[in-house]
Amino acid sequence: MREVAVVGAGMTRFGKYIDRSMKDLAREAVDHALRTAGIEPQALQAAAVGNAVAGLITGQECIRGQVVLREMGIGGIPVINTENACASSSTAFHLAWLYVASGMYDTVLALGMEKLFHAEKRRTFEAIGSAIDLEQADAFAREMSGEQSVGAGQSRSVFMDYYANLARRHMAEYGTTKEHYAGIAAKNHTNGSLNPHAQYQTPRTVEEVLAAPLIAEPLTRMMCSPIGDGAAAVIVTTAAKARQLTSTPVFVRASTLGSSQEHDPHAPGIVAKVAAKAYAMAGLGPDDLDVVEVHDATAPAELLVYEELGLCEPGRGGQLVADGVTSLGGRLPVNPSGGLLAKGHPVGATGVAQIAEIFWQLRGQADQRQVPGARVGLTENGGGVLGGENAAASIHIFSV
Amino acid sequence: MREVAVVGAGMTRFGKYIDRSMKDLAREAVDHALRTAGIEPQALQAAAVGNAVAGLITGQECIRGQVVLREMGIGGIPVINTENACASSSTAFHLAWLYVASGMYDTVLALGMEKLFHAEKRRTFEAIGSAIDLEQADAFAREMSGEQSVGAGQSRSVFMDYYANLARRHMAEYGTTKEHYAGIAAKNHTNGSLNPHAQYQTPRTVEEVLAAPLIAEPLTRMMCSPIGDGAAAVIVTTAAKARQLTSTPVFVRASTLGSSQEHDPHAPGIVAKVAAKAYAMAGLGPDDLDVVEVHDATAPAELLVYEELGLCEPGRGGQLVADGVTSLGGRLPVNPSGGLLAKGHPVGATGVAQIAEIFWQLRGQADQRQVPGARVGLTENGGGVLGGENAAASIHIFSV
Repeated sequence: MREVAVVGAGMTRFGKYIDRSMKDLAREAVDHALRTAGIEPQALQAAAVGNAVAGLITGQECIRGQVVLREMGIGGIPVINTENACASSSTAFHLAWLYVASGMYDTVLALGMEKLFHAEKRRTFEAIGSAIDLEQADAFAREMSGEQSVGAGQSRSVFMDYYANLARRHMAEYGTTKEHYAGIAAKNHTNGSLNPHAQYQTPRTVEEVLAAPLIAEPLTRMMCSPIGDGAAAVIVTTAAKARQLTSTPVFVRASTLGSSQEHDPHAPGIVAKVAAKAYAMAGLGPDDLDVVEVHDATAPAELLVYEELGLCEPGRGGQLVADGVTSLGGRLPVNPSGGLLAKGHPVGATGVAQIAEIFWQLRGQADQRQVPGARVGLTENGGGVLGGENAAASIHIFSV
Repeated sequence: MREVAVVGAGMTRFGKYIDRSMKDLAREAVDHALRTAGIEPQALQAAAVGNAVAGLITGQECIRGQVVLREMGIGGIPVINTENACASSSTAFHLAWLYVASGMYDTVLALGMEKLFHAEKRRTFEAIGSAIDLEQADAFAREMSGEQSVGAGQSRSVFMDYYANLARRHMAEYGTTKEHYAGIAAKNHTNGSLNPHAQYQTPRTVEEVLAAPLIAEPLTRMMCSPIGDGAAAVIVTTAAKARQLTSTPVFVRASTLGSSQEHDPHAPGIVAKVAAKAYAMAGLGPDDLDVVEVHDATAPAELLVYEELGLCEPGRGGQLVADGVTSLGGRLPVNPSGGLLAKGHPVGATGVAQIAEIFWQLRGQADQRQVPGARVGLTENGGGVLGGENAAASIHIFSV
């Protein structure tokens, strides 16, 4: 397949935008991506658009991408609307990459977008709950939390109970502490304070994270990602065109997507399996990475992903945090953007926003949160819950 | 790119299945496709799943494909959930083809599925309406029909008014008659009577079609596709593997997707533009075709598509019908399956069902509705309404 490069990226600040439409958010992200790429909208030959829940929030269940893109004069091209819960837009990026890698098109847009805040709170919660296999949700909630059943408004707590359970299991098995998880949250909130796109921009200490309201032992509110609105866009093209457009294209070394199988607690998790595929595709390993963005839906999730990505031995994630390895200034900074915890998590926008961050990091354009000399970066984006594991995971590796 | 072939196909009969879930319908289609391909579920390396409105109907907005496939033991593989309104599953097929053509995977499932009948009728109508740019729907309804506004329950009539308007314009411009449109409906209902998968299996005459209740002049009910539930699945693989599996692989000669631009009544329509791309990709033209399945959401739509596909000169669609060219037994049968009018139109299942029909036709397995000696076939699937044209169109060409 052909070599593919990212040549432009843009995103809105993530946050609560009751008065802005998804079209408006998407336009800001796409405009910025086009400008940084130095191309006109007419140069786009196709678009892949990731969104998770606009149907439930806005009623626009179908042709969401076309409706949004025509507002900015982008039409007449193939538009693929794709969904994979929280991994919707990394899936869109994967398809944009595939279009270019296959030789079918040269220049393709990947857009992720989400509106979660709705005046009717109930609709927001129902939408988030739809990322679970609904028929399993009842049994799931009982197993995880002792609750009797999961109504629409309780879907959020199902997710947090799921992560709390994983966190407790890791503590029991490996001696991981609540302070380790708090350390991840403090790191990400502090990184977020350096990122103008982040929803939360207040640096936090371990003590502050631990003192926040408890959601589900050991998770405090600061260890859980917020919901939000936002959009992120990147443009991919062939290596040859990329070199004409810029002196610093960011090459896609691996683009992978996977989903969970029936859950076997002794088998490697979905992230480990997809990571193995990504490392093989890139011809690179964990030791080659300079900067990483992971799906920290909660602080414990980031710790578990360290181990599945092979950034440390199984069970050693807590020590990695304690040693400051994954902090800015450490050997391998993780989530310099602030991650989902601080940058925010507008479901369908998250995957492309991670890729935008790595694009800026590898081009040395990440300002105060820059990882010095970063040349190889990885993104890990997970989505949905199916039988006790993520329903989708997508890992990308980039280099300059 | 690599040569790709279809090696298996399956579908449910389309219809009203109040008591069957989407999972149950999908299982029937996938099981049948696997059996005809002669492969086990474990041979599938990825899946692309097209569905339009399950979020609004079932509440399962996210990870729909994973939820359905795990029921049949298909997991651990990349699952792309994709949507393009009525063209959702031809888009899924396009992505399955792209995975194999690019060299990324060898054997991939394309599944289309839909549940439209819901005990609460309102939900069914809202779901169908979501295939329109909702913010435009009010103005649209007024322009087309003089109605004051389009409520959720009126979305269906917006579509029919749209088609009625196109039909009247063609009559005024070219002298096309209501009998021409009725001839298409009578042909498709009669073809449907030969297809065990069709929702309607009663042969109809032009007189019966004209005597059916009027929906919007000149459309009678029998000129409009019904709503329905159903699923369709096909399996694609490399040419080399296909030749090992079967003596009659059906090769994909062109796989294209497009969307409308700002509407210019003097510019060629989206179908003509996408068809030009498909013919160029296949190195074939309209004269090479033996059998065609088109998106006859209404009878006039089929006539307009004749012209956009170049099956006749512009304005000559009525004559093509009158001459029996597109009937079974004619020079170029169109919609031998019964088309959307008689086979049915479960939105997200329609595109793959068209491909399944061409697969059977080119293998000589279409029983009573077989087009003798058919070697080259085309499918045309359109989706959504955006600014006065389809928001998506996908055309595929196949040969043995």
